[in-house]
Amino acid sequence: MDPRIREHAEIIANHSVDLQEGDDVVIDAHPVAEDLVVALHEVVGDRGANPLTTSQRTGERQRRAYLRAGDDDYETPEHELALIRNTDVYIAIRATDNVTQTSDVAPETQAAYRQAQRPILEERLSKRWCLTQFPAPANAQLAELSTEGYENFVWDAINKDWEAQREHQANMVEFMDPADEIRIKSGDTTDVTMSIDGNPTLNDHGEHNLPGGEVFTAPRPDSVEGEVLFDMPLYHQGREITDAYLEFEGGEVVQHSAAKNEAVLTEVLNTDDGARRLGELGIGMNRDIDRFTYNMLFDEKMGDTVHMAVGRAYDETVGEGNEANDSAVHVDMIVDMSEESVIEIDGEVVQRNGTFVFEDDEL
Amino acid sequence: MDPRIREHAEIIANHSVDLQEGDDVVIDAHPVAEDLVVALHEVVGDRGANPLTTSQRTGERQRRAYLRAGDDDYETPEHELALIRNTDVYIAIRATDNVTQTSDVAPETQAAYRQAQRPILEERLSKRWCLTQFPAPANAQLAELSTEGYENFVWDAINKDWEAQREHQANMVEFMDPADEIRIKSGDTTDVTMSIDGNPTLNDHGEHNLPGGEVFTAPRPDSVEGEVLFDMPLYHQGREITDAYLEFEGGEVVQHSAAKNEAVLTEVLNTDDGARRLGELGIGMNRDIDRFTYNMLFDEKMGDTVHMAVGRAYDETVGEGNEANDSAVHVDMIVDMSEESVIEIDGEVVQRNGTFVFEDDEL
Repeated sequence: MDPRIREHAEIIANHSVDLQEGDDVVIDAHPVAEDLVVALHEVVGDRGANPLTTSQRTGERQRRAYLRAGDDDYETPEHELALIRNTDVYIAIRATDNVTQTSDVAPETQAAYRQAQRPILEERLSKRWCLTQFPAPANAQLAELSTEGYENFVWDAINKDWEAQREHQANMVEFMDPADEIRIKSGDTTDVTMSIDGNPTLNDHGEHNLPGGEVFTAPRPDSVEGEVLFDMPLYHQGREITDAYLEFEGGEVVQHSAAKNEAVLTEVLNTDDGARRLGELGIGMNRDIDRFTYNMLFDEKMGDTVHMAVGRAYDETVGEGNEANDSAVHVDMIVDMSEESVIEIDGEVVQRNGTFVFEDDEL
Repeated sequence: MDPRIREHAEIIANHSVDLQEGDDVVIDAHPVAEDLVVALHEVVGDRGANPLTTSQRTGERQRRAYLRAGDDDYETPEHELALIRNTDVYIAIRATDNVTQTSDVAPETQAAYRQAQRPILEERLSKRWCLTQFPAPANAQLAELSTEGYENFVWDAINKDWEAQREHQANMVEFMDPADEIRIKSGDTTDVTMSIDGNPTLNDHGEHNLPGGEVFTAPRPDSVEGEVLFDMPLYHQGREITDAYLEFEGGEVVQHSAAKNEAVLTEVLNTDDGARRLGELGIGMNRDIDRFTYNMLFDEKMGDTVHMAVGRAYDETVGEGNEANDSAVHVDMIVDMSEESVIEIDGEVVQRNGTFVFEDDEL
């Protein structure tokens, strides 16, 4: 077995979920990720914890068969809920043999199923949990890479010194945490300001997401002004949106367009009131993620990018007494900051063309 | 997909586990059985039940990794127990990519793990449950068949008219249920008598085991007299025992031998007191199982055979007030009854050379 798989398993156990003796562990994985599941079983066995492998989240072929056979009337399964309630650690491994497996399941069917699964999702998020990636061939194909090239990409991004990464990111948290206004400029297409006053900035260094590599907070919902061209593509429910453009007034999207699949973007924004306002601002700081791979778990942490999400804000990024943007959606979109770009915090330049002021004070 | 897979799934759902709307279902399967798992998801979705797929029982590679890494000190996982407690239907699919996957896990490690899993096993057995087989290549290899030949064998044995099979077997139950003494003779190597007085004979027509195809009861533990040569081989914990020979006095094995791996047979018999007495007598009646495949799920139901198990008796085969043989083991062994063989019940011949008296009254 590639020694990087065992290393990946140890980072999950030791760094991401802080595995303890006696922990009841659920590992959810597609069979193409078997090597990582086996490596995790070695680590879990060594630690005296108790593993159970499911393929609920990742078994897309079986879920497709189930959803197409049903009548869109789903209930929350008691047995699955009981399993997760009694679990200490939940590890979800992304990997598949066909990333478009559920492309012929009606969106409203998928939405009805997700709704029924919601209490299970909430339960998972209350545990020590981690979402990670195994570099399966179909995922390499989505990334437009050879399988070996994608393996290198994934493990370079994951198997790293997360304490050093945390310290690097802490520099940016120090700027953002006490800040009021943040301004993002890129080329002549993006110039947006927003208030993050009183909202905590979190340091994602590979705990719930592996890879981690961003710092993120919530904009105050009414504060966003200006325009953004998201020049990196995004996939929403299997459809690619390119060059998404949003114009904000008083926090709300008042104009939008996209080069490809504008109707999908429109649909997202029309979901509910909160879908027209930002719920997240994140700064990508994992420089081992040096290319776009159509996978938000990696893309949003890419070095020299920022991302903004329309929709729901994470509770832990909303300060006491501040308004939290609420929505049924949370859709991340990315701006390349490597050229002709600036991040200003309360009037001070903290990043220019991807370089931070704490890396080069001559910005 | 081969239409026999969907037929297999429907027999499991409709005949074996009586699937109902709203049922919470666990399907335990190795990835090589994916087609049957998918077909089951179609049926489960169509019925409005709730599936969850695990690979606890069948994920041998991961279990091997877990068991080899541990220290033989296992606990019963609360999350797995909670899952099964809240499950209505448990479907286990046998199939693997390597039948000798756990051959380098120490027997005492496997025993310690099984002991910790015991409450989970008991919980499963209290549900509507079914154990079946998917014809994976590695299982075909064990059976010494081509994969296509093994597919034909498995689905011929499983996808059949179970009501007709039940009626066929009911003829034999009618003989055995009220009987006192049963005598099994084969060639000049097997001549054994035992009392089944007061012990019910069960009709296995494809419910808990799929394929089914036997009628079975418990001998009274002290009543077995005579000798048996089990001329079909058996596998015990990955080791083949051939020509096992047992001699009984007062119900107890007083002499034994085997052509191959006699020491393994000795080890079985020395497990505990109950391991030296019979816990089951079964009559194989599924004539679509026409060859030995080193798989007890099929072998013990083979037409024209009888099998006896040393060790634990099934509770439901022991009549009220009768003694139940108890043991940590239950090891089935098979006698070929197709030639020079007779089954007598209370002195009357009910089978000769594989033909039953209710098929030909000129026996």
